[in-house]
Amino acid sequence: MSLHDASPEFVQSLSEHLPEGTLRAPEPRYLEEPRGRSFGNGGVVALPRSVDEVSTIVKACNASEVPVVPYGGGTGLVGGQVVTDGAKPVILSLERMNKVREVRPLENVMVAEAGVILKDVQTAAEAANRLFPLSLGAEGTARIGGNLATNAGGVNVLRYGNARDLCLGLEAVLPTGEIWHGLTRLRKDNTGYDLRNLLVGAEGTLGVITAATLKLFARPKSVATAIMVVTDPAAALRLLALARECVDEAVSAFELMHRHGMDFVAETLPDVRLPCDTPPEWSVLIEVGTGSGAEKLLEDLFGQALEEGLVDDGLIAQSARQRDDFWNLREHIPVANKAVGSVASHDISLPLEALPEFIAEMSAKIAAQCPLRINCFGHLGDGNLHYNLFPPKGRSRHDFDDIRHGLSTQIYDLVHQYGGSFSAEHGVGRLKVVDLETYGDPTRLAAMRAIKTALDPKGIMNPGAVLAP
Amino acid sequence: MSLHDASPEFVQSLSEHLPEGTLRAPEPRYLEEPRGRSFGNGGVVALPRSVDEVSTIVKACNASEVPVVPYGGGTGLVGGQVVTDGAKPVILSLERMNKVREVRPLENVMVAEAGVILKDVQTAAEAANRLFPLSLGAEGTARIGGNLATNAGGVNVLRYGNARDLCLGLEAVLPTGEIWHGLTRLRKDNTGYDLRNLLVGAEGTLGVITAATLKLFARPKSVATAIMVVTDPAAALRLLALARECVDEAVSAFELMHRHGMDFVAETLPDVRLPCDTPPEWSVLIEVGTGSGAEKLLEDLFGQALEEGLVDDGLIAQSARQRDDFWNLREHIPVANKAVGSVASHDISLPLEALPEFIAEMSAKIAAQCPLRINCFGHLGDGNLHYNLFPPKGRSRHDFDDIRHGLSTQIYDLVHQYGGSFSAEHGVGRLKVVDLETYGDPTRLAAMRAIKTALDPKGIMNPGAVLAP
Repeated sequence: MSLHDASPEFVQSLSEHLPEGTLRAPEPRYLEEPRGRSFGNGGVVALPRSVDEVSTIVKACNASEVPVVPYGGGTGLVGGQVVTDGAKPVILSLERMNKVREVRPLENVMVAEAGVILKDVQTAAEAANRLFPLSLGAEGTARIGGNLATNAGGVNVLRYGNARDLCLGLEAVLPTGEIWHGLTRLRKDNTGYDLRNLLVGAEGTLGVITAATLKLFARPKSVATAIMVVTDPAAALRLLALARECVDEAVSAFELMHRHGMDFVAETLPDVRLPCDTPPEWSVLIEVGTGSGAEKLLEDLFGQALEEGLVDDGLIAQSARQRDDFWNLREHIPVANKAVGSVASHDISLPLEALPEFIAEMSAKIAAQCPLRINCFGHLGDGNLHYNLFPPKGRSRHDFDDIRHGLSTQIYDLVHQYGGSFSAEHGVGRLKVVDLETYGDPTRLAAMRAIKTALDPKGIMNPGAVLAP
Repeated sequence: MSLHDASPEFVQSLSEHLPEGTLRAPEPRYLEEPRGRSFGNGGVVALPRSVDEVSTIVKACNASEVPVVPYGGGTGLVGGQVVTDGAKPVILSLERMNKVREVRPLENVMVAEAGVILKDVQTAAEAANRLFPLSLGAEGTARIGGNLATNAGGVNVLRYGNARDLCLGLEAVLPTGEIWHGLTRLRKDNTGYDLRNLLVGAEGTLGVITAATLKLFARPKSVATAIMVVTDPAAALRLLALARECVDEAVSAFELMHRHGMDFVAETLPDVRLPCDTPPEWSVLIEVGTGSGAEKLLEDLFGQALEEGLVDDGLIAQSARQRDDFWNLREHIPVANKAVGSVASHDISLPLEALPEFIAEMSAKIAAQCPLRINCFGHLGDGNLHYNLFPPKGRSRHDFDDIRHGLSTQIYDLVHQYGGSFSAEHGVGRLKVVDLETYGDPTRLAAMRAIKTALDPKGIMNPGAVLAP
C-alpha cells in the first residue's frame, strides 16, 4: 500500500471544509517523543473541535490515501505517536476536544472528550466526590484518548484495572471517516462484537477515539500507605498474598522498588526525600483504601508479615505529607533513571509465580556478561516490572551501545520462555513492531492483520504502528 | 454465501481423521433450546477431546464450506446454539473438553477447558479457597466456554463484572481452523489488538473457544444477605447509592424483585419459602461480602435507609439457611415465570438514572392497552431488568399472540430512546438479529460485518447468529 503526503494541495482542499486555524504546520512538540529516540517526518497538524470535524478530516485522508496519526498528550514511550518515514501524515491532535461532557455521580459515570488531560479527568471526578483511578507518571500531560488508545496502566491497576477496564463506551471515527456513536452508560449490553475493546489498545491503528464514557468509583474514605522492606521478590509476593487475605480487595497499589532506584534518586534528585538513609535492597510501597480503619489494617498486616519473616522493617505513613513523600519517591524513580541514562529499559510482565525466578536468573545472566546496575521496579501486584539496565558509576550508556540490543533480546527471550510479555503497559508503537512479530502468536497476528485490512483497507490509520505496514 | 450440508460423505471423510465415536447423529437435546422456541435442522454432532481435534474439524468444515455451531451447555435463551434452517451443520460440542487444567491460588488464576460446567469451575475454585464469582441460574448445566462466548452475566456482575471481566486469556480455534494459543496468566499485556474480547461475546461466530484462563478472587470471609422493602424503583436506586457509600465495593448483589414474581412463586412452587405472607410491591435482595462484620454493615445500612425513608421494612438473614432461602426465592422467580407462561420477556438494560422513569412510563403504556401482569425484576445494580409480561389470572399467553410482537417493539423502542439495550446479558443469538439491525449503530454494524468477513470469509461459524447471513 503506498500512501501519499499531506501535500499543500491536499491541505488547501481540506482546509476549505474546516474552520480557519484547524490545520497548521507542526511545531516540534508534535514530532518528538519523550525519550528523544525518534523524530517525526513532518506533515500537517489538524486541531479539530468536534467529532464531525474529525470525521471530515479522516474522510478526506481516506479518499486521498494520506496517513492519519492520532495524537493525544504525546507521552507514549514506544513511538506510536510519531511517523518517522514514508508519506507525511496528518497529525490529528485531539487537544481542542477537551471538554468533560457529563459527570453522573449517581451512576458512577463520566463522559469525557479524548483531549481531556488525565489529571483533569481525576479532578472532575473528585469534584463530584468520586474517584477516577487511572494514575500514572505522565498524568499531567497525557490525554484520556491516548490513555485509552494505548490501554494505559499505572499504579492502581491491581485494584481497578487498566484503562480498558475503566471504559464503558466510546465515540470514535473509524478509518473510513464514519462516526461510531458508542457513548453508552450501560454496564451490561450484549449486542454483538466488542468494538470498544478492539479500539482500546489498538494505538490509533483502527480509528480515532474522540470521547469516552468512563467508570467512576467511590473514594475510599480511609487510605493508608507504607513502605516495607522485604527480603527478596519472592517475599514481596508472599506479602502481597498475605495482604490480600488480610485486607481483601482493598490493596490499591503494591509497588516493588530496588535499592538502585533510591540510589539514583539520591544521586540525581537531592530534593526528593528518602524514607531512610541506607536504601534497602528490596522494598515495596503498599497502599490500602477502605471505608474505615485502613491504617489499622496496614499495621496488622505489618505485624503478621514480621512474624512470618516476610519483612524486616517498614514505615507506615503517619501523615498526608509522609504519604506524599512515599509516592513522590516512587514517582521520581523514572525521572532519576532518565537522569542517570539507561543502557536499555524493558516494560515486561510475568506470571506472578514465575517472577522471582525470572529476576534471579536474568540478573545472574547479565552479571556474567557485564557490570551493569539493574533497576528492577514497578507494579509487582500486576506482574509488571520495569527492568532497566544502567551503566556502572563513572561510565556512560554509550559504552554499552554494542551490547544493548543483544541484552534486550536475552531479556525478552527469557520473558517469553516464562510466559511473559515484552510490553506490559507501554504498547507496541513503532519501537516494538519487530518484537511483536518475534514473540506474538502467529494465529493471533494473522487475525490482527485481517482485522486491520478489513477496517482500514487503505492502511491510513497510524501506519507502521503495531503491525508492519 | 451458500454453505453445504454436513453430508454422509463429508462425515465419513472427516471421521477418518478423528478417534472413533467423535462424530455421531445428534440426540434431541442438541436440537432444542430451553424455551422450546426453535429447533435444530439436524446435522452431525462432533465431540472432540482436544483442541487439535477441534482444529481438524473446523479445518475440514472450512475446506468444504460446512457450517459449525459451537455448543456448550445448550442453556442460551436467544437460539444462538441452534441452526434452524439452511445447510445442516456440524454441532461442535465441547462437553468432552471438561478438564480444569490448572488452579493457581497464589496467582488467583485457573485454566479450564471450555466444556467445564460452570458449577464445577466454582467448586474447583472453592477447593483452593478461592472464589470464581460468575453465578447464574443455569450454572449446573451451562459450560464455561458458552458462558464466555455469550459474555454471561448473572447475580455478581455488580462487584466482579461479566464473564468478559473474569477472563485473562483464551485458547481458541479460529474459523480457518488455526489454533490461537492465548492462555496467558498475565494481568497486563499490551501487545496488539484485543482478540480475547472480540471472541468473548461473539457467540461462536468468530471462532470456537476451547479453554480459558479465569480470574479467581479471595472468598469474602463475612457475607450477609437481606431483603429490604423499598417504596419504588427510584428508592431502590437511592438505596444502592447509599449502600455503596456505606460499604464501599463490598456490595456483591443488588437484585430488584416485584410482587408478581413472589406471587408466581407462591402460585406455582409451593415448596419455595417466601420471606413474608404478603409480598411487597417492590423489594431488593442485597448481599454484602467483606473481610469481617458484613452483618453489622448491613444492619447499619438498613438503619440509615429507614431513617432516610428509602425502605419500609426488611429482613437480614440470621442463618445460612435463611440466606439460602432468600436466594432460593430469587432464583426460582424465572422458574415460576416459565410455569405461569409469559406473553413476552425482555432482557433489557438502562442507564441507572433513566430506570425508574422507564419503568413508570412503560407500565402506564402497557396498562393503557391490555390487562397484563408485569414482572419486572433483575440485576438492578447493573441497570439490567428482566421485563416480562404475563396474562392476567385465568387467561393464557396465547390469548395475546396477536399483540406480543407489537408490545416487544414498544418496549425496545422506549429502551432505545432512553439509551438502553435490547439485550443486556442474553446476547443476540438468532432471535434478536433483527433487533440488532434495528437498534444497532450503523457504523458499528458495518465494522462487525467487516470483521466477520475478514476472520470467517466463508461464513461457516455459527451462520445466522448475531449477524444476518
